Amino acid sequence: MSIIDTLSRAGREVDAVILRYLERGASRDFLPVVLHQVEAGGKRVRSALSMLCCEATGGDRAAALRPAAMIELIHNYSLVADDIVDCGEIRRGLPTVRAKYSDAMALLAAMHYREVLDEIANDCPRSDDMRKLMIETIKATIEGERLDILFEQAGRDEDYIVKHRCKNVSWDLYFEMIGKKTAALIRASCLAGSLAASASDDATDALAGYGWKIGLGFQVADDFLDIFGEKTGKEKGKDIIEHKLGNAVIISALEELSDRKAKGLLAILKSSRVNASKLKEAMELIDGTGAKTRIYRLAEKLVNEGKLKLKILPESSAKNALIQLADFIATRVY
Amino acid sequence: MSIIDTLSRAGREVDAVILRYLERGASRDFLPVVLHQVEAGGKRVRSALSMLCCEATGGDRAAALRPAAMIELIHNYSLVADDIVDCGEIRRGLPTVRAKYSDAMALLAAMHYREVLDEIANDCPRSDDMRKLMIETIKATIEGERLDILFEQAGRDEDYIVKHRCKNVSWDLYFEMIGKKTAALIRASCLAGSLAASASDDATDALAGYGWKIGLGFQVADDFLDIFGEKTGKEKGKDIIEHKLGNAVIISALEELSDRKAKGLLAILKSSRVNASKLKEAMELIDGTGAKTRIYRLAEKLVNEGKLKLKILPESSAKNALIQLADFIATRVY
Repeated sequence: MSIIDTLSRAGREVDAVILRYLERGASRDFLPVVLHQVEAGGKRVRSALSMLCCEATGGDRAAALRPAAMIELIHNYSLVADDIVDCGEIRRGLPTVRAKYSDAMALLAAMHYREVLDEIANDCPRSDDMRKLMIETIKATIEGERLDILFEQAGRDEDYIVKHRCKNVSWDLYFEMIGKKTAALIRASCLAGSLAASASDDATDALAGYGWKIGLGFQVADDFLDIFGEKTGKEKGKDIIEHKLGNAVIISALEELSDRKAKGLLAILKSSRVNASKLKEAMELIDGTGAKTRIYRLAEKLVNEGKLKLKILPESSAKNALIQLADFIATRVY
Repeated sequence: MSIIDTLSRAGREVDAVILRYLERGASRDFLPVVLHQVEAGGKRVRSALSMLCCEATGGDRAAALRPAAMIELIHNYSLVADDIVDCGEIRRGLPTVRAKYSDAMALLAAMHYREVLDEIANDCPRSDDMRKLMIETIKATIEGERLDILFEQAGRDEDYIVKHRCKNVSWDLYFEMIGKKTAALIRASCLAGSLAASASDDATDALAGYGWKIGLGFQVADDFLDIFGEKTGKEKGKDIIEHKLGNAVIISALEELSDRKAKGLLAILKSSRVNASKLKEAMELIDGTGAKTRIYRLAEKLVNEGKLKLKILPESSAKNALIQLADFIATRVY
């Protein structure tokens, strides 16, 4: 089975579970609002990870179904919230929940998701551990999102944010942010699977390490796409337009550029509106550095480090699929 | 001990618990955002109810401390979210979380509250039941808030909301809305206390009935204050300015007014901006009916029905305090 088949199968199975839970306790009129984000699809990478990690450690695939649904719904919860925070209009080619139903309704839908998450966690194997994993992960995601916002250089005019912006993002700070924003949930996807399988401590550590590394690689690859946007539906230079200093390509370019040119790039990120000519200028500055190659290689390196963690696991088709999934993440870039 | 002393004592004890939990897993820079809403105070009526209901059914006051903290934090969670939904600027005489720290940070703070709620529920006596009560209550609150939004007649321009507004709010629909928006949490405050005391089914039913009725009375009294605003810091005619048809005074006035005058009052609620002369006109229309007296009496009647439910409980100082608390709620009106 190809990795794409694995993903779509996991998606179909998990979606049915999520929909069943979401419908509980939501009134008929509220349902379309509540279902929109989940029905808009997605690759279901995270739920596939949960199911594969369960199988790879000797668990029954069925035991991972609800944990996988929990993980996928945490992801969707964070997406609905992110779109409110970023005034996002389009996601997965469709209007976001807030664009279609208003910010107010999107917020209520997100809150409903969070209640449903508790209900799913409650029905998971090892529910207390599963719930703890969920809470720890959502808390990390909140902190990651907070840092991501403060790493923006313009675009929000509230006093508090203007005053607390981080104007110098070191690699350490960058990795802290993406670790919390992205890798924590991908690591949790793996841990939810190994918990469902009651895997050994060694296997659990291996999967946690795998999830963490490919999670970092996933975000670095995303940063790459949010600048170069090739071969995907993404807007070229999206993170520049959104004033984001918390992007690996930009941090890497700034390191290499002369002081004068680095100031020029920062000035573009700080401008209240990044128009086409400013974007072109920024892209030229970045293209004049080795950032593109360097960040592609960084994503690849992180994913490879992730794959290495799987060494201690016995050979299995699930393990192979985890390796393929890691490659899929790294090779998205080109 | 006067009811005010009871409230402030409950407040002090419960606040310490809430603060301790909120600080867990929130980074140092995020803490001021997270603490603002809780430190802004409030009457702590809900946590006092939990503690008194625990004592009134023979439980140990200490057992109700975390349940009371859970209830109070659910309330604060809903307030932070409401202020985002309604673009609220001032609450309890201070800037709201969103006004002080931005909508984005307020949303993240609310999300943090929800994680902390799970942690408090987990540490409560009878934690599984306590968590179920919390989930059921928050789901109800979400639905109540959704209805309240759709009962507004103007003020939001998103297509979805404009199209789905409810233009005719019956008493049934009104009571459904306030039951979910307000009474569900006040009922849950009482149930959290009786759960902590492992009260008998009869005592639990009595307290649930008490909480439900005084919760409805509380909201009806609030509606009264949101129109007449006397003796409180509330803005006179607040709900008219906010285009709210989901207010008992307005529904009552509309019932009594002639068709022509009722249309006039509705037209004011539907106007994109309710200026001073429109507000004066609306108040005159309302004052020309018996709505003021009728709604005052309705609040009083609901609270009295609530007090009657306590009959089956043995006499105790906690029971007396519950009766005083009900009166405090009803007499807020004048």
